[in-house]
Amino acid sequence: MLSMLTLRALRAADRPSLERLLRDAGNFSEAEVAVGVEVIDAGLRPGQEDYNFVVAEEDGAVLGYACWGKANLSDGTWDLYWVAVDPRGRGRGIGRMLVEHCEEAVREARGRSLLVETSSRAGYEGTLAFYRALNYEVLARFRGYYTADDDKIVLGKYFSF
Amino acid sequence: MLSMLTLRALRAADRPSLERLLRDAGNFSEAEVAVGVEVIDAGLRPGQEDYNFVVAEEDGAVLGYACWGKANLSDGTWDLYWVAVDPRGRGRGIGRMLVEHCEEAVREARGRSLLVETSSRAGYEGTLAFYRALNYEVLARFRGYYTADDDKIVLGKYFSF
Repeated sequence: MLSMLTLRALRAADRPSLERLLRDAGNFSEAEVAVGVEVIDAGLRPGQEDYNFVVAEEDGAVLGYACWGKANLSDGTWDLYWVAVDPRGRGRGIGRMLVEHCEEAVREARGRSLLVETSSRAGYEGTLAFYRALNYEVLARFRGYYTADDDKIVLGKYFSF
Repeated sequence: MLSMLTLRALRAADRPSLERLLRDAGNFSEAEVAVGVEVIDAGLRPGQEDYNFVVAEEDGAVLGYACWGKANLSDGTWDLYWVAVDPRGRGRGIGRMLVEHCEEAVREARGRSLLVETSSRAGYEGTLAFYRALNYEVLARFRGYYTADDDKIVLGKYFSF
């Protein structure tokens, strides 16, 4: 049987897989996993428009997901809230596929930019390198944001039409 | 009778005064007023800990308020969400009193910094000057954030112990 990676919408049945995926990803703290699960629950509420999700699936297994939404009070800035890839699916460009899917959705909505927040702490160097490789630039760095020695780094990509 | 300006906690009966105050302030858009009222409603929910409020009152009239809270996923960064002063109360240092009250509360909670977001559009120059006078520094500027020609400016103040 030919394996086939597909991107599809979020389903209620994904909740346990996505929670496990957040834990297995290895870089998220317990508090971050809890917020991630809250956002998944918010995304499953019928009629909500704050959070958009895309899920990467292969042979019935969920290998990653991304979540994005329009920034509060903005008419064209979007936030990339979460991108998580199962360790078993790493090195195959799944993260890149997910981010590119979000970018396309933002462009279709005539969004001007997509922002993503990350951390300066150990374990997040790969995240920073990942976004730089996708042409995101560091727009801001908030010293001692998460903890006294963990800065918040905001990366972003601007789209032109 | 001697007029006496006092700072006190938020009460459910303040809701209409605060909504009027947000409208009368003149610089908030309708969307911003709506978010402001949502946050007031959240602040009035029993047991919530996301939003702290302080209200400035004189002779039974509400002249201003401020709202602040701990930043998500942070152990010591706080956000100053709203500061609004009634036009009739301007020029008396009420805004400064409100901000200083928030700063004291953040320091008491051993917070490291207090951040505030503002806009680059016309009508907000006074806001920027206000925070600079209170020793806030511009930490970041997100080009075209709110609209194509309206940047988000993040100011902040770091506390030492």
